[in-house]
Amino acid sequence: MAGHSLISEPADLAAVRMRVEAVLNDFLDEKARLAAAHGMPAEVTDTLRAFLGAGGKRLRPLWCVTGWHAAGGRGDMAPLVKIAASLELFHAFALIHDDVMDDSGTRRGHPTVHRSLTARHHSRGSTRGAERVGTGAAILIGDIALAWADELLHTAGLTGRQLTAVLPLIDAMRTEVMRGQYLDLITTGRPTDDVERAMTITRYKTATYTVQWPLHIGAALAGANTALLEQLSEFALPIGEAFQLRDDLLGVYGHPAGTGKPCLDDLREGKHTVLVALGLQEADPEQQHALRTLLGNPDLTPEEAGRLRRLLTATGARQAVERLIEDRCQQADRVLSRSSFPPDPRPLPSVAAYDQLLRFRRRPADGQAYQEEAP
Amino acid sequence: MAGHSLISEPADLAAVRMRVEAVLNDFLDEKARLAAAHGMPAEVTDTLRAFLGAGGKRLRPLWCVTGWHAAGGRGDMAPLVKIAASLELFHAFALIHDDVMDDSGTRRGHPTVHRSLTARHHSRGSTRGAERVGTGAAILIGDIALAWADELLHTAGLTGRQLTAVLPLIDAMRTEVMRGQYLDLITTGRPTDDVERAMTITRYKTATYTVQWPLHIGAALAGANTALLEQLSEFALPIGEAFQLRDDLLGVYGHPAGTGKPCLDDLREGKHTVLVALGLQEADPEQQHALRTLLGNPDLTPEEAGRLRRLLTATGARQAVERLIEDRCQQADRVLSRSSFPPDPRPLPSVAAYDQLLRFRRRPADGQAYQEEAP
Repeated sequence: MAGHSLISEPADLAAVRMRVEAVLNDFLDEKARLAAAHGMPAEVTDTLRAFLGAGGKRLRPLWCVTGWHAAGGRGDMAPLVKIAASLELFHAFALIHDDVMDDSGTRRGHPTVHRSLTARHHSRGSTRGAERVGTGAAILIGDIALAWADELLHTAGLTGRQLTAVLPLIDAMRTEVMRGQYLDLITTGRPTDDVERAMTITRYKTATYTVQWPLHIGAALAGANTALLEQLSEFALPIGEAFQLRDDLLGVYGHPAGTGKPCLDDLREGKHTVLVALGLQEADPEQQHALRTLLGNPDLTPEEAGRLRRLLTATGARQAVERLIEDRCQQADRVLSRSSFPPDPRPLPSVAAYDQLLRFRRRPADGQAYQEEAP
Repeated sequence: MAGHSLISEPADLAAVRMRVEAVLNDFLDEKARLAAAHGMPAEVTDTLRAFLGAGGKRLRPLWCVTGWHAAGGRGDMAPLVKIAASLELFHAFALIHDDVMDDSGTRRGHPTVHRSLTARHHSRGSTRGAERVGTGAAILIGDIALAWADELLHTAGLTGRQLTAVLPLIDAMRTEVMRGQYLDLITTGRPTDDVERAMTITRYKTATYTVQWPLHIGAALAGANTALLEQLSEFALPIGEAFQLRDDLLGVYGHPAGTGKPCLDDLREGKHTVLVALGLQEADPEQQHALRTLLGNPDLTPEEAGRLRRLLTATGARQAVERLIEDRCQQADRVLSRSSFPPDPRPLPSVAAYDQLLRFRRRPADGQAYQEEAP
């Protein structure tokens, strides 16, 4: 197993992002051209372009390229970058459908796809009619993003050997994230103190999907063997879990200007997160009652949200989640330090390079990203 | 180009169906086993199994196998049958999402997936909560069906050459049907007299998706060249259009016992079909006004539906659509009679064999399938 740094330097992340953007733009340009040639509405490609252009950290493409480097990938990176872009298009599908399912209003600081399409079709006599078209169009545009993720994958120019290595990983990733979403969906609205269950959702919905599978896919493209994939998992799982645990904290304590999402959504939906499960576990009877009454209340006021934040802090749940995150970061560091990815002449800033993107260690003390607990 | 009958005899259709069912059942059994092993809810596989088991004509698998025979396919049919089953799983995805988008209540004589999942989750405090979970779960189960259609495709055991031949067809089929659905969605609710537009929707949403692409995919698996694919299209397009035109008639005049769908849905939604476009084109001002007022009215009464049916008949639209269907059937017959698929020792009942399945020529005189126009 060749030893290579997980990622050469932070600047590479920017270069990878640019190449991924270029693939996505070219792909959508071609689709728009074909649609126009067949008299089809430009709405589909316009919407996807706007969605992808509105931001996003491109984590999955970045981890995919990281996996390739970790496995000593050499030579033409064009097929790799197409696979990385395909992961991003798949992610667009997942987010668009997720926002429909949660009826979220805001994503990346903009109206969500179904909301903006509902607004676009407002000229239909009734609100009900506009919502039907807007939501239906968002479901279809999500479906199209998924089909096009496949097309990018099929036309990436992989060798037969690469296809054989990568397709089972992609199929497994998809089933896993969709099952995680399913668990998330049916537990949302009635969170319990079952921390293990919340951890399972975290693992399936995010940890493996965001970090492990993209790393594996990139590594498999470079011909990685099973031993290397297993070693990457040892690093990927704690990092992925830290990412989701941080996201859960930001969902409750985050500032909309920093997260691009309203700060009440998670509380109003009553997401069954580790934070909430720990809070329910540690709460005294009075706190329990308050938590159960407020969590998942769709009409939660900002004042009540403030009360929930204080309750989750008072039970010690917030601090416990911070500790879980720190544990996981240290675990990932340990794997790296004893791994067979020794630094080559360049430094090995893998965790550090991703730290900023992933916000693993961004504590409340960082200020800006968090709002005051007391409104 | 080898000459072969399009399908050997009607009995073969039943045999093909059975093999496709077996592949789907085995696949879902394995998925259910894996879900149980990971502590995942059985709801996903249970729902897909119930949906697939509730009926369906398996048209796409049948056309796929027909294409293989037409191109002189020989040898192990196992990979072909898996691809055929993959098309059916893709179709399940399309129907499940279609029913969410149209908020249809009934499919194949049973509650639609989102309605039955809403009922299953009725224990959640509010109707709104149950609907959110039921609809979200149906969207996700549709997504999973699409991802699993891919997995069946990827694990069908195709040769590299077959993969190269088939993947572009599958990608093209998906983009086309989703774009057709998109057009359908945004024109539904405000039908016009634009017959050409309605014909475009028919072509993209159904004709190529139901007949041409499955035929091409089966033929490509058997190594068909471009000339043969083009010849198959000459046959497939009129057959596919006839199928959709008949479906449009059944959507308005069909008897629920025969179609498995309520007879008011299409009228209440205001689908922009060829039937409706022709009706609007031929209507006098008074009929125009009545048609525009009633079509797309979500609260249409059975009496008003009866009035719509009489109007569409009185304008001559119904009869005109019957003629379009007959024209297309004759066109397909002509292609067959001059094609290089000469009958081998067995007869060549292709159109006839599919006729019953597809109901091309089932006229009002057939009675049962149609209800009286006057309620």
